[in-house]
Amino acid sequence: MSGHTTNLRLKLPAICFLLQLLTILLFAVFVRYDRETSARLWHEELNHHNKSNRDNDFYFRYPSFQDVHTMIFIGFGFLMTFLKRYGFGSVAFNFLIAAFAIQWSTLIQGFFHSFHDGKIHIGIESMINADFCSGAVLISFGAVLGKTSPVQLLLMALFEVTLFGINEYVLLSIIGAKDAGGSMTIHTFGAYFGLMVSRVLYRPQLEKSRQREGSVYHSDLFAMIGTIYLWLFWPSFNSAITAHGDDQQRTAMNTYFSLAASTLATFATSALVNGEGKLDMVHIQNAALAGGVVVGTSGEMMLTPFGAMIAGFLAGLVSTLGFKFLTPILDSRLKLQDTCGVHNLHGMPGVLGALLGALVAALATQDIYGDGMADVFPFIADGSRTATYQGTCQFFALLITLGVAVVGGSLVGVILKIRTLGSPPDTQCFEDQIYWEVPEDHQDGYTTAVNSEDPDRSASSV
Amino acid sequence: MSGHTTNLRLKLPAICFLLQLLTILLFAVFVRYDRETSARLWHEELNHHNKSNRDNDFYFRYPSFQDVHTMIFIGFGFLMTFLKRYGFGSVAFNFLIAAFAIQWSTLIQGFFHSFHDGKIHIGIESMINADFCSGAVLISFGAVLGKTSPVQLLLMALFEVTLFGINEYVLLSIIGAKDAGGSMTIHTFGAYFGLMVSRVLYRPQLEKSRQREGSVYHSDLFAMIGTIYLWLFWPSFNSAITAHGDDQQRTAMNTYFSLAASTLATFATSALVNGEGKLDMVHIQNAALAGGVVVGTSGEMMLTPFGAMIAGFLAGLVSTLGFKFLTPILDSRLKLQDTCGVHNLHGMPGVLGALLGALVAALATQDIYGDGMADVFPFIADGSRTATYQGTCQFFALLITLGVAVVGGSLVGVILKIRTLGSPPDTQCFEDQIYWEVPEDHQDGYTTAVNSEDPDRSASSV
Amino acid sequence: MSGHTTNLRLKLPAICFLLQLLTILLFAVFVRYDRETSARLWHEELNHHNKSNRDNDFYFRYPSFQDVHTMIFIGFGFLMTFLKRYGFGSVAFNFLIAAFAIQWSTLIQGFFHSFHDGKIHIGIESMINADFCSGAVLISFGAVLGKTSPVQLLLMALFEVTLFGINEYVLLSIIGAKDAGGSMTIHTFGAYFGLMVSRVLYRPQLEKSRQREGSVYHSDLFAMIGTIYLWLFWPSFNSAITAHGDDQQRTAMNTYFSLAASTLATFATSALVNGEGKLDMVHIQNAALAGGVVVGTSGEMMLTPFGAMIAGFLAGLVSTLGFKFLTPILDSRLKLQDTCGVHNLHGMPGVLGALLGALVAALATQDIYGDGMADVFPFIADGSRTATYQGTCQFFALLITLGVAVVGGSLVGVILKIRTLGSPPDTQCFEDQIYWEVPEDHQDGYTTAVNSEDPDRSASSV
Repeated sequence: MSGHTTNLRLKLPAICFLLQLLTILLFAVFVRYDRETSARLWHEELNHHNKSNRDNDFYFRYPSFQDVHTMIFIGFGFLMTFLKRYGFGSVAFNFLIAAFAIQWSTLIQGFFHSFHDGKIHIGIESMINADFCSGAVLISFGAVLGKTSPVQLLLMALFEVTLFGINEYVLLSIIGAKDAGGSMTIHTFGAYFGLMVSRVLYRPQLEKSRQREGSVYHSDLFAMIGTIYLWLFWPSFNSAITAHGDDQQRTAMNTYFSLAASTLATFATSALVNGEGKLDMVHIQNAALAGGVVVGTSGEMMLTPFGAMIAGFLAGLVSTLGFKFLTPILDSRLKLQDTCGVHNLHGMPGVLGALLGALVAALATQDIYGDGMADVFPFIADGSRTATYQGTCQFFALLITLGVAVVGGSLVGVILKIRTLGSPPDTQCFEDQIYWEVPEDHQDGYTTAVNSEDPDRSASSV
Repeated sequence: MSGHTTNLRLKLPAICFLLQLLTILLFAVFVRYDRETSARLWHEELNHHNKSNRDNDFYFRYPSFQDVHTMIFIGFGFLMTFLKRYGFGSVAFNFLIAAFAIQWSTLIQGFFHSFHDGKIHIGIESMINADFCSGAVLISFGAVLGKTSPVQLLLMALFEVTLFGINEYVLLSIIGAKDAGGSMTIHTFGAYFGLMVSRVLYRPQLEKSRQREGSVYHSDLFAMIGTIYLWLFWPSFNSAITAHGDDQQRTAMNTYFSLAASTLATFATSALVNGEGKLDMVHIQNAALAGGVVVGTSGEMMLTPFGAMIAGFLAGLVSTLGFKFLTPILDSRLKLQDTCGVHNLHGMPGVLGALLGALVAALATQDIYGDGMADVFPFIADGSRTATYQGTCQFFALLITLGVAVVGGSLVGVILKIRTLGSPPDTQCFEDQIYWEVPEDHQDGYTTAVNSEDPDRSASSV
Repeated sequence: MSGHTTNLRLKLPAICFLLQLLTILLFAVFVRYDRETSARLWHEELNHHNKSNRDNDFYFRYPSFQDVHTMIFIGFGFLMTFLKRYGFGSVAFNFLIAAFAIQWSTLIQGFFHSFHDGKIHIGIESMINADFCSGAVLISFGAVLGKTSPVQLLLMALFEVTLFGINEYVLLSIIGAKDAGGSMTIHTFGAYFGLMVSRVLYRPQLEKSRQREGSVYHSDLFAMIGTIYLWLFWPSFNSAITAHGDDQQRTAMNTYFSLAASTLATFATSALVNGEGKLDMVHIQNAALAGGVVVGTSGEMMLTPFGAMIAGFLAGLVSTLGFKFLTPILDSRLKLQDTCGVHNLHGMPGVLGALLGALVAALATQDIYGDGMADVFPFIADGSRTATYQGTCQFFALLITLGVAVVGGSLVGVILKIRTLGSPPDTQCFEDQIYWEVPEDHQDGYTTAVNSEDPDRSASSV
């Protein structure tokens, strides 16, 4: 049933062991505890710099970190379990590639952002940033879900994390753009990178597996676990690495209201575009989250609560319309097979969020931000940039991100076309049984689905 | 299959867009960042009031907020997925109405509690309070679950949030009652409001849908996700808005022990009242939580750990007995069709909790509270009230809450009887298919359940 | 269908009421709020010791506590729902015995660690320690899952918590060992205690229930909820009671990287040992967590990130190999029926973690720890011990733990053999229906499974 190519017995162990041992070696050479994590260094801070333990950044960021961590492993993992026969692959490959990506991105981001005296210094903030970077990889995973082997996915993570680090460095350190919640660095980048990978890996014969691309009743409920956790903790995601104080609180609040508004917009639009006025779980599971994406850049700014709500409302609307009308067109015309619809949830709302960030930056005034300007727009505060110029920089940051994502995704797609990486055949996409020992109830269903000429049978077999 | 009345194509978008746009408009006019959320204002605090970022209330309350947020969207949402054919509606309508309620209650509570110079000022505490208010709406939702359309539910939320705000204002600001965890304002109010709505919407022909009112094996496991999250985070719920320091820690601890005791009482009673000594999932899913409800008022007081355990023990006992003996009587005699048994989980334990709060308040002495009196009972601390008088106020607060809930719920029930709101027919209650695009495995089941004369068939069809 | 012995109508209520009322009585006599939880005492701290509310330990530990709490009730509870017909028992008996254990361990640990002036003083730290102790009981539960009644489990918890408290006291207070994340006190102790209980309760006829010992497709997804939550929050588990500041941050970070490495090792090994190169959910659900166990002792030490990754990598490898090769041997040769494979997840990685802790302690130098030495190794810091001696103490702590666990587990196993405790017959292990009212879809399956002579039938019946 599973041919030579999808047998992972040597390939998967080889790449896992290789990547893990390489990572351990690089950590041994380069990675050290930072001043807040090292016993000696932190106690020097306590003794010589008049600090107390409660100044340790751990207490400002660890609760947010754990929320982000939940989003990455539960949120993304379960969101993708909507597929009727790919629940194991969804949650477990998500687990695997995120577990690798957080290690690799600690190295990559460390080289760019915290490399001093030949060493990378890490702490709670680098953990959050590593999780963020793995988020981008998981967005790309959503585009190729069910059509790639774990070997391909690990290779994708390896390259995507590296390109993510480069793009992020250009945006934040060279251009001086702001993007605390990652509308550009995470969502736009992850979505268009993944879409280009999917484009290069285009399967003209995917129809042979379409009967497995839907959900069953309980798989939709598992997916809702992912949705709700992403929705709940998005305020923590966007505020996790903003400046302490008002910035974290404001960002959380803006995100909270944006999400609430995108939820109502999603329910409304879902019923409106359905012939019978029925709601579609795909929309609820995804588009309701667009409100978190769209304020990823502007959430830390003085967006105002009602500004956040307008943004979320539009994002939910656009995202739902995308699922209904744009996805089928992208598939048939542009050969973009986007399993989870990441273009609707991360792509368009990410671009909208970047544009919104540019606009809100351009409108920044001393009157609005007061002495808080230095935290949000340090270059405006120190007089080296006007607000308009900051807004322009934000806009170019979007263009660069799109460029890096499209070119990078295309190149990585070409690499992933190597025939020996264990990719599933067109007839066995969205199917756990080729990579997993599955329980008997699932085997029966599989046999039915594969043997039967009638795709409708597959749903009732689970 | 779905007649004219349940088609939501115009109704649901209309009410969602209307409510959302109205809310955005009111936010634009009235709502502003508070002193801890605004960049300018918080930096004024930092510069002129000798504060540091770690004094920002965000760091005292945000972790608790996220726990409460999880309870509202995961806890309530999944608790209600026990119904075999209403999992989508349970978790997703919960999502919809809570997403609206948190916005609307920010306005309503803001008008009553933080309206200065013509503006409502919001921050982390208003976010917690908004979530609390939506909790009351979700309790009411539990009473009418499966028997109402999302249009009706949004209207219910609109009115209930408003009445909640009024009742809360009377209790906390006029009567000076204490109710940090909401035994009265949230649980008693939400339960009796919802029961009255259900009473007014009484369906004499509900028997036609009873075969769908039960669970299947996996739907009971989904419900346990909701139960356990509510149980876990209830200490955060009750302590989220108490005073900083000992108050938050004591409230969390009291709730922790009360819940533990109610769990043992529930298991014991569940086995005791069953003819074969078997446990009933309905009891475990619900009554084990009564320990959180019953210390909602007194949790911040010097209840003592063993006092909390006695309270939780009694609440678990009463709640389980309610499910076994009282719910059938309320249904048959008083025409109270209470889908989730909110009377047992929120109604009776809420009233018990209010009475316990009155008792513990009346027993407050300077010796027990010391200088902490001002945080718990400011009017006793400043000498304007005796402990007995505070206890009496607490008792009257309960009576007022019951009055507002019963009258308000009845009136709102009458409004929800309007025929064009998309309410399901008696034959199609507890059924996702009328409002949702459902996967094929669920359609088959539906057809079986509806066509078959034998209600027993329905269980095996999923 | 359920014979006399498994009817819990009197037994379960009797033991629940008895234990709960006894606990309440002991709390009333002995347990009091500590200085940070009591209104009067904390305000004395504020007034006379120049503290502020943000010094309250609540703000240093409560977020970690809630993560630990989630691991105990969601993590352990859902991890065990992998059994196709024992989901109710898994999550709900987990709930019951943990709810009792946290109360009982508050008393036992309180007598040993915070008994002053005839009273036990409790606060947030005792809540975390109580949850930790219940974790050990739940590990033991994993070994006997599906083969014991809730009455037996409550008795096991009663005795195990007591022995846990004694062992912990000997290790931490007498020997002066360090074990913040409990590689010894929790994992080694819980695993070998449970294995010995299982050994004494050995069922030679368990084959009669083997057809129910596997999973179905969706039960494996429920189990993944448990796995991922345990994995996510393990950094909080290991850091929850370490010293403030660098210790908490370092411990969380070490655990984070150890878990990531054990995940890659688990995927690699799982594919490698499978004949067809397919992954096995049992490995992913369990062995990926071994990275958390293995740094339970050394996580707070200056282990270095790459040291943590090597430890996690080896733990994942050993744990997966254990599931594949050792578990069948233990079962057939040593008569150790270990339902959840706790020997692989908690036993071996716990012992490894203890040895690693001894090694890292023996390597401690003033140069590495600086003034932070006093937090991690107070006896080395004050000159009363050399690092080598501390390492030796750590090693003897492991031996003592193994001794107490093996002897204690054997004795408790003998007690649990009492015939009237409601233990299931050999033919009805791993079956919810004997203790639970189950929905109809589950009853049908049960009948099929029991009546059928063909064990293969059982999987397709759910």
